[in-house]
Amino acid sequence: MKPLRVLSYARRQRPRFVAELKEFVRFPSVSNQPRHAHDLRRCASWLATHLRRIGLEQIRIVPTKRHPIVYAAWLHARGRPTILIYGHYDVQPAEPLQEWRTPPFEPVVKDNNLYGRGACDDKGQLFTHVKALESYLRAERKLPVNVKCIFEGGEELGNSPGLEPFIRRNQSALHADAVLMSDTRMLGPGRPALGYSQRGNLRLELEVYGPKQDLHSGNFGGAVHNPLQALCEIIASLHDAEGRVTVPGFYEKVREWSAEEREYMERTGPKDSEILRDAGVAQAWGEPGYSLYERVTIRPALTLNGISGGYQGAGIKTVIPARALGKISLRLVPDQDPPEIAQLLHEHIERVAPATVSVRVRTLGASNPALVNRNYPALRAAAFAYEKGFGARPVFLRSGGSVPAASIFQKTLGIPTVLMGFALPDDHVHAPNEKFHLPNFYRGIETSIWYLAAAAKLAAKRKDMRNQPAQSGMQQGISKGAAKS
Amino acid sequence: MKPLRVLSYARRQRPRFVAELKEFVRFPSVSNQPRHAHDLRRCASWLATHLRRIGLEQIRIVPTKRHPIVYAAWLHARGRPTILIYGHYDVQPAEPLQEWRTPPFEPVVKDNNLYGRGACDDKGQLFTHVKALESYLRAERKLPVNVKCIFEGGEELGNSPGLEPFIRRNQSALHADAVLMSDTRMLGPGRPALGYSQRGNLRLELEVYGPKQDLHSGNFGGAVHNPLQALCEIIASLHDAEGRVTVPGFYEKVREWSAEEREYMERTGPKDSEILRDAGVAQAWGEPGYSLYERVTIRPALTLNGISGGYQGAGIKTVIPARALGKISLRLVPDQDPPEIAQLLHEHIERVAPATVSVRVRTLGASNPALVNRNYPALRAAAFAYEKGFGARPVFLRSGGSVPAASIFQKTLGIPTVLMGFALPDDHVHAPNEKFHLPNFYRGIETSIWYLAAAAKLAAKRKDMRNQPAQSGMQQGISKGAAKS
Repeated sequence: MKPLRVLSYARRQRPRFVAELKEFVRFPSVSNQPRHAHDLRRCASWLATHLRRIGLEQIRIVPTKRHPIVYAAWLHARGRPTILIYGHYDVQPAEPLQEWRTPPFEPVVKDNNLYGRGACDDKGQLFTHVKALESYLRAERKLPVNVKCIFEGGEELGNSPGLEPFIRRNQSALHADAVLMSDTRMLGPGRPALGYSQRGNLRLELEVYGPKQDLHSGNFGGAVHNPLQALCEIIASLHDAEGRVTVPGFYEKVREWSAEEREYMERTGPKDSEILRDAGVAQAWGEPGYSLYERVTIRPALTLNGISGGYQGAGIKTVIPARALGKISLRLVPDQDPPEIAQLLHEHIERVAPATVSVRVRTLGASNPALVNRNYPALRAAAFAYEKGFGARPVFLRSGGSVPAASIFQKTLGIPTVLMGFALPDDHVHAPNEKFHLPNFYRGIETSIWYLAAAAKLAAKRKDMRNQPAQSGMQQGISKGAAKS
Repeated sequence: MKPLRVLSYARRQRPRFVAELKEFVRFPSVSNQPRHAHDLRRCASWLATHLRRIGLEQIRIVPTKRHPIVYAAWLHARGRPTILIYGHYDVQPAEPLQEWRTPPFEPVVKDNNLYGRGACDDKGQLFTHVKALESYLRAERKLPVNVKCIFEGGEELGNSPGLEPFIRRNQSALHADAVLMSDTRMLGPGRPALGYSQRGNLRLELEVYGPKQDLHSGNFGGAVHNPLQALCEIIASLHDAEGRVTVPGFYEKVREWSAEEREYMERTGPKDSEILRDAGVAQAWGEPGYSLYERVTIRPALTLNGISGGYQGAGIKTVIPARALGKISLRLVPDQDPPEIAQLLHEHIERVAPATVSVRVRTLGASNPALVNRNYPALRAAAFAYEKGFGARPVFLRSGGSVPAASIFQKTLGIPTVLMGFALPDDHVHAPNEKFHLPNFYRGIETSIWYLAAAAKLAAKRKDMRNQPAQSGMQQGISKGAAKS
């Protein structure tokens, strides 16, 4: 049955939906800045109230070691499959603040875009599903499937630290047939994309120590190794001139893909020119022999995310800083193992670090790469829904980002995750002036409505909705290495 | 005549002198932080009032483009020489604040040291002369010489930008026979040192640009050159593995010194072990073939003073920063020419900068190296005073730091500057927990008193007190290159 009344409701309510999303974006729920802990609690509470108001049940705000998880469910579709909807209400830091054209937590609509930190990642995308559920519950008084919602507040911490313990504690209650999440990008306007592969990540801090305290660079410059300079020297040693990572063994377990898979990627993925345009850079960089889409999806990367060291104020302070800190994150691909890569990196840094300084490497966290069979039925249902919602056939897309939650659902519940992204490449996710394109908000809601309808139709084939072992159909295009989840 | 009554007065007043110095240190007169502009004006006003109270005349607070200069004089010693006393009341930034054991602008005395930003550099040292003048004026009702005081608020900006225009505007009024300043270090406790050579400096910012805005390192990591990484790569290219600066032509005009001069330096200067101990590092670094004292005095150096780029808060933000900024200062020696070195560095950076990023180098300022003949009579008078004040024969010492004021006095008034330092190597100048050793404060005052007395005796030889061209006697030990002021 076509969800016509549901869609009609959703269309009529668009202005109110946008107003509510603005309320949601207004919370500065920056999970990795301790001063915002209270804002996360307020945001979770607002969301829980909202979910109750639209008709969801079993509402709970579940504390974790960091920020609470908001849980809600609707389980009256007896005999039908259960869809677990995941999203996160926490956001990245808004810094650098001076680069925002409007304040990050005072959302404004301009040219059909909603601007604000989290407008797209992930409050706006999460909200498409909330509004789809509301539309069903208001228009039909029921949902076509059972639904469990997990909206967490720790995704931007990098590894969703509260999620896995929560799922393990509630494993049987959280049983579901498929996970649906929207936290990824489309290829472009009108070009929907379903994610079937995400890179894992590994996050490190590299600290270099020298003198006991900052020194006057006049008195000591030329006689003492500057820890900040030594940090630069170590960082510079991590890539060769062409952009390959030089850490020995780094590429050893990287899975090579068949010519067919690479052709599929070339046919369906973004072109080099599109990636460069989205990045706003003129020239490509990185590992030779791979397209840019390949470099950011099936090839690993090492990124220096930040350096603190020495004087950063106006003018110059003539100082040799006593210490310097580099923040590094890696994106890993099958079959790289995060702890093993961490070990290789530690060893490399110890080998190249000059004897004139001391070095400490700290691993902050990691998540595994994730990969879903493109023939997984719930993914096919999502493709159908997407086509209805956006009027265009989606491509199956790999993402360069990491979705620790997808790894966690795979590991703990044994179900792959359907990644139905509504973000545009120029939505400035994680950057100043983040926005959500409102037509995508509206289409996202309709796509979610169609997905719920399609998932209901798959009820008869319930077995197909369950997880298939990663090894089964996932290896089309795999030429080397064992498949891993 | 021995200044016995003057010395006796100075000894009796020590507790009050320390209390006054604490008042002086309490002003957060950080010249390169715009938010402290008002504190500099308050500090200048306090100092001017203080100078009037001790009996100096012609008090003026002279505005400059940045912070005011405090001027005072006493010109009743007819037929006697005129000594220009220079100091600076501005201080370095106190950051990083968390490393101070006591707040930087709440001076406290502990173990015979006065702790606080500026306690040593330069408020404490400046104050030795103020208290010497007071002691003379109170005990004798007059000074043995004419005195003009210039206390500026722009030294820590790096190039004393207000000083040269002020002197040029008042060139005839500021005529003097010698400049005396205390803004340098002794070799150690009880080991006084007179500075006769300082390195020049050159201050630059190196900015690297990439994407128009920060990018998500998941989406783009591996395909876009990270400006922060590129900055590290450029920085790493500025030194070779042994610590030599690799900029082509950098050492070309560096003056080589004779074996005699290097032996004098070895005999009189700090040992490698002392410099390492003062720096608080275990291992030396830098240009092979030179002692550490040579590396920090007769050899140039390039120091990375700070980097800003990317995320610096807690945890990780998975971002490719759009830009990165390095702050670099060089210490230059005769016969390096700062503009020429700036040009060489610009060219080198343009040559090594990868095509995948954009680079901008900005010169923020520069000062020439300074060098005084060790036989200059006013320097000999200072040696005599020092011996009386500290009970030890001073060595003639080269300093690795820069004294732009000395270059400016040489250039504008044609008089070399006597650098009579009272700072100890472990006074943490420019660093957290800066201190002034109070016995050095007291001895500094007595040394200044003896200097004023000795300078008076030189009155008959007034001509000798005037500048001698740098070329005259300065070249003992010079084996190559023309002498420069």
